[in-house]
Parts: sequence; C-alpha cells; structure tokens
Amino acid sequence: MTSKKAILFIIDGLGDLPTPKTPLQAAKKPNLDRLAKNGCTGLLSPLGRGVVPGSDTSHLRLLGYDPEAFYCGRGPLEALGVGMKLEEGDVAFRANFATVKNGQVVDRRAGRIPTSEARELEKYLSTKIEDVEIIFKHSVQHRGVVVFRGSGLSPMVSDTDPHGEGQVAECIPCDQIGEASKTARIVNKYMKFAIQRLSEVPENKERIRKNLPPANALLLRGAGAYKKVPSIIERFGLNSVCIAGGALYRGVATYIGMDVYMVLGDPSTGMIKLEEKVKAVENAIKNYDFIFLHVKATDNYGHDGDFKGKKETIEKIDKEIIPVLERSGAYLIITGDHSTPCSRREHSGHEVPILIYGRDERPDKVKKFDEISCMAGGLGHIEGKDVMPIILNLIGKAEKYGS
Amino acid sequence: MTSKKAILFIIDGLGDLPTPKTPLQAAKKPNLDRLAKNGCTGLLSPLGRGVVPGSDTSHLRLLGYDPEAFYCGRGPLEALGVGMKLEEGDVAFRANFATVKNGQVVDRRAGRIPTSEARELEKYLSTKIEDVEIIFKHSVQHRGVVVFRGSGLSPMVSDTDPHGEGQVAECIPCDQIGEASKTARIVNKYMKFAIQRLSEVPENKERIRKNLPPANALLLRGAGAYKKVPSIIERFGLNSVCIAGGALYRGVATYIGMDVYMVLGDPSTGMIKLEEKVKAVENAIKNYDFIFLHVKATDNYGHDGDFKGKKETIEKIDKEIIPVLERSGAYLIITGDHSTPCSRREHSGHEVPILIYGRDERPDKVKKFDEISCMAGGLGHIEGKDVMPIILNLIGKAEKYGS
Repeated sequence: MTSKKAILFIIDGLGDLPTPKTPLQAAKKPNLDRLAKNGCTGLLSPLGRGVVPGSDTSHLRLLGYDPEAFYCGRGPLEALGVGMKLEEGDVAFRANFATVKNGQVVDRRAGRIPTSEARELEKYLSTKIEDVEIIFKHSVQHRGVVVFRGSGLSPMVSDTDPHGEGQVAECIPCDQIGEASKTARIVNKYMKFAIQRLSEVPENKERIRKNLPPANALLLRGAGAYKKVPSIIERFGLNSVCIAGGALYRGVATYIGMDVYMVLGDPSTGMIKLEEKVKAVENAIKNYDFIFLHVKATDNYGHDGDFKGKKETIEKIDKEIIPVLERSGAYLIITGDHSTPCSRREHSGHEVPILIYGRDERPDKVKKFDEISCMAGGLGHIEGKDVMPIILNLIGKAEKYGS
Repeated sequence: MTSKKAILFIIDGLGDLPTPKTPLQAAKKPNLDRLAKNGCTGLLSPLGRGVVPGSDTSHLRLLGYDPEAFYCGRGPLEALGVGMKLEEGDVAFRANFATVKNGQVVDRRAGRIPTSEARELEKYLSTKIEDVEIIFKHSVQHRGVVVFRGSGLSPMVSDTDPHGEGQVAECIPCDQIGEASKTARIVNKYMKFAIQRLSEVPENKERIRKNLPPANALLLRGAGAYKKVPSIIERFGLNSVCIAGGALYRGVATYIGMDVYMVLGDPSTGMIKLEEKVKAVENAIKNYDFIFLHVKATDNYGHDGDFKGKKETIEKIDKEIIPVLERSGAYLIITGDHSTPCSRREHSGHEVPILIYGRDERPDKVKKFDEISCMAGGLGHIEGKDVMPIILNLIGKAEKYGS
C-alpha cells in the first residue's frame, strides 16, 4: 500500500427523496460518479435504520464514538466549537440574541443582528450568580454560547427559548435532584440579568434609534454537561484533523481530541469557501493520518427546501473538492451525516449514500453516486458504528481481535 | 407530504420455499407487483437471521416491542384477545376442551366441538381454589383461556396439555421459588375440578348419547403473567388500530394499547371475510394514524401444506385488499410475521419479503413481490426491530436522536 491515510468527507444532509429525481441524481458530478464506478458504494444509516439523526450524535457515531456512551448534549459541543475551554461538569447552552417587547419574544434572532454588532454585546454578558461563574461567548450573527461553571450543576433543565411565539420560557428542572433545581434557578436569574443589562447598553439604544429590533434578551437551548472523553488518538491511534466551518463540527472534533484546522471563514457568517477548504486539505494531508472534512451548505439548502441550491452545491463540490481528494492518494470515505430531503425541510431517517474509494479496494458494479444507484452497492446497508472500523481497516490501523 | 398515515399489513406466514416456485411467485398478483415496482422491497428477519419466530413474539417485535423486554407469554395475549380484562400478575393459559377416557387423552380437541356447544360449558368452569380466583372464557371451537388471579402466582409452570398421546400432564413448577409450586398445585387441583365438573354436566351427557366425544377435560398450555406495558401512543405517539380476526393478534394489539376494530367474524370460527376487513380499513383510515391489518389464512394453508390454498389466498388478497390500501393514500408496509413453507408445514426462520410504498419514497429496481425478487431490493435485509423506526420516519413521527 502506498497510502495509509484516509479522508472522511461528510457532505451534511446529503441524502434526499426523489421529486422525481434527488439532487444527487439531478446533479452533474462526473468526479463523484467516477469514484463510484471505481470504488465501492452502499447506504448508511448513521444511528440505525429509520432513526432520524441529529447532527451532533451522527458525527460522534461516524467518528467512532457511540452517542449512548459519549453524547454530552449540544451546548458543550458548540462551546468547544467556538474555542472555549471547558471543565468537567460545566453546563453549556446554545444562545440566541432575541428581541423582547412587553415581555414577549417578538424576534427570536433580534433582526438577524450582524456578527460585528452582536460581538460588541459579548462583553456585557459574563457575570457571577450565587457561586456560579457564567461565561458568554458570541459566535456568528445572533448566535453564541453560555457556560455555567460551579459546583452542583446539572444539564437536566429545560430551554428558555420558547421555540416560537411567547415569553422567554422559564427554565424548569427536569428531575427531582437538587442540582437541576439550582441550575434552573441560576439560569432564570441569568435570563433576567441579561434582559436588564442589554436594555441599558448603548449598542441597543443605537439599534432602537435606527428602528432596528434591539438584541435585548438571550434565549438558551440544548443544555449539556461537559465531560472529558478518551481521545481519538488514545482510542484508535489516529493522528487526525478536522476541516470544517461550523462550530458544531469543530466542537465535536475538539471534544474527541482531534486537531482543528484553522481556516479563516467569512467574518460575518463563519462560512468557509470551498477553495479554502481545498487548500487546507492539501496541507493537512502531509501531517495527518486522518482528515475529517465537512461541508454544511447541502444541509442548509435541504432545510430551506431549495432543490436547485442543493444540486448546485453538489456540482461545486464535485468540481472543486473531489479532484483534490482523489489526488491526495488517501483512502476516501464520502457520505452524509443524515438525509435532509428538500421536500421535508428537516432531517429524516432515510439512508445516506456512502462511497469508499482506494486504489487497492474492491470495486462494485455501481456507476453513479446517488440514493437509488447505491441500493445495489457492494457495501450493502451499513450503520454509523461500522464506519470507523472500516476506516481503520482501510489504512491498516485496526487492531486484530483475537490472535 | 400529503399523507402522514401508515398501514402495516401482515400476511401471516407469507414466506415460503420454492417447489419449484413459491406461492408468491406462482400467484397472479398484479397489484402487489405494481407496488413492488413503484416502491422499495427487501427481506425481513423478524427476530434475527435464521431465527424461527413465534407469532406472538414476531408481532410484538414488528410493532416496536422487543420481546426480550415485553413478551409476557402466549396465555395473557390470548386472554386479552378474547376480551378479558387482566390485572398485573394474573397468570393466564390457553385452554383446549379435550376428551379423556380411563385417564387417557383420546381427543385433544373433543371431536372439534362446535363453538355453540363449547360456549355452553363456559359457565361451569370458573371457580376459586385456595385464595385464587379462576376464570375460564371460551373463544371459538374447542379453544378458550383460563386466568388464575391471586397473590403469589408464577408463570414458571409446565403445560398440562400432553401435546400428543397420554394422560393430562401434571403441572410442574419450573423453578424453585414457592410461587411456582403454589401455581402448579392450584393448576393441578383445577384440572381435577374441570374433569369432575365436566363429567356431570348435561351437555356432555347429551354428546355421549349422540356418540360424540364429550368435552370432559381441559388442557392448558402457554402460561404467562400479565404485566402492564407502556402503550404505543406513549412510546411512539401513534394513534393506532388493529384490524384482525385471530384472538392472538387482537390480544397483542390490546396488550400494547392499540384500539381493536370490532369486525364481526364468522361466529363458529372467528374468521373475518376479506370484504369486512376492507370496509374496516376504509373506515379506520379516517380516524387513525396507524393501522395494523392482519390476514391469517396464508399461515393456515402453510401449516396444512396446501400450496394451492396459499397461492389462491394471495391472489384474493391482491384483488380485494391491495387496491383499497393503495387508494387510502397511506404509506404501505406489506410483509409477513414469518415464513410457513408448505413443504415444512411449520414456521421457519427464512426471511419474509417486505415492501414499502409511498408516493414520495425512493423506488428500487425490483418489479415483483416474492422471496427471490426481493433479494435484490433496495431495503436490503432488515430485522423486525427496524420496522417501527422505518414507519415512524415514513410518516414524520420519528423523534430526532440528538440535535
């Protein structure tokens, strides 16, 4: 074998349903189809047949981490993804800037406040309540994370995001243990603190003067408690790196001890251009055994019901990324973390096409990379739990079971 | 999505072996084949590859209930199926009327005593022994159920049905716990009570006068202890109904909290005509998210080794039921609970064809619905545990795992 490296390329929300074609079927993607022709294909259920995967649990599973044992909730993964250092027991939430008027949430995204303005508000939002240190960090646009650090906290509390119309929801303890009660009490005090504080700051007075919705409240969701887990190098001996724009994916990678390649994204959206990712891959392949490469846009188009956008993104990926991956000489594993059918505008439990390519690997008879063609693929129907063992086997890093 | 409903149609004992064709291959079934052509097919192992399923465990598994956690034995399911109300800890058995002569069972079905006559005997057979209340309920022909209600009972006892020649078997405790001993003691007393009681009743004197074998004993089998389990609406949010003739299937449905559609069966056999089931489906689809429809005859023909009967039943189903299901607009999941090959006359562990049809679902290349064609199906080889997650995903009722 000339190559002992592997690239896992996750095209987010890749799978779709036929209307009458799927975006993958409709896209012109000669490079992906050539890899399918020369490689081996199949269908992947990240978390089991029919199960609708979250992005966090699915990525953990594909990277060899069973979410039943290793899932810590979304909040800590997002916090790690925006570069926060977490300590065992920290309870983290995703946070949105929102606009509240007469006690009602009138805009869950504070008029989609731009990154540059929202960042200015970060400095007002860290504080201490009782014995708990609270750290707010802004990420992009209206988004950020909040970390609660102190003794006796629990992630078993409800969101304050009403996920629709209404008031800022009261944080409610979800179990009868005192830690959840304490956490909920502090979260509720923090919600009042944030409204009080944000109502006074000059940045919001300026927004009101300009007739823009002020970012005068925070909405929290996705509580989770950080715990340290054995790293991907400890578990699999993989010297590995993540190339991704989205905070969640960088967070998952950080959580399992991967390096995260610092690629400069668009300062206002965090989005990274494909050509930047391509450069990152070309550099990273020199120093790492295993690259986890992620593209998010396909999923966004699925959520927007934008068939054309999804199809064109696939075509762009095919043109700009696939040849670079092929030239790298690494084993390629190309798939998605779940289906996001444009007709449903949300994640679904439908299988995702998967393609494995390596010069010395077994080819199947499939000639195209799409949901229907891959039904006849030589990999058959695999699950997320199968992916890391397959990768380790490809690059000769699997430990023999028995002797 | 225009439809958010699903129909799981279980054609009992559907799978078969080729001689040289299987009944499914030999049958003219243009409607099933059209659904196969436009839908997605595969092969199903209800309880795992090669495992020979019982009807009870297979149905539980297909409806989302792992028998390892939820199986309570056959007796309670039959009891629920004939409309008995059970209490936690009740021990129930299936019962047969039998003919005993000089202590020997000479006819395990009391000359297949007709339903109308057997029903007259019901009133003699409920009693109390020690502190245990005993309730007998007749179902059809020679069949019924017995429920033992009281403290400290156990289902860990043997059958009194000799399952062949010989005496009424002694009920033996299968473990060393006192509860099994008590239960066995009471069952044995009840066996004597039944023989004593039935020998005196005028109905049996009349049968003897007519030279018919008297129904002068009960044989018990399939002990199980009833326990309350979380309902299908609690677990999956499915507003659901069962349309079935057989007591077992209605019992499984009742056990998991489904409604049971009251269709009038033939009073002497309990059998329900297909046209009655069709009407029931047409009504039920208006009010329920999920219909579990069951046809038993295919399995009976398999047990009888009657290839022609099985083939013709499939043709009748194809003509009378399938078009109605298709018109309903619901997602269709069509399969069997196991194979009952005519050449074996018993359940086997061979896979069963499965077919999923919905207008917006991914089609595969398979054009016929049979054991051999479905080997190339786009679903691949699935297990019973996969069926409910797949159904929930089809109708958009699956909960996302993670976020």
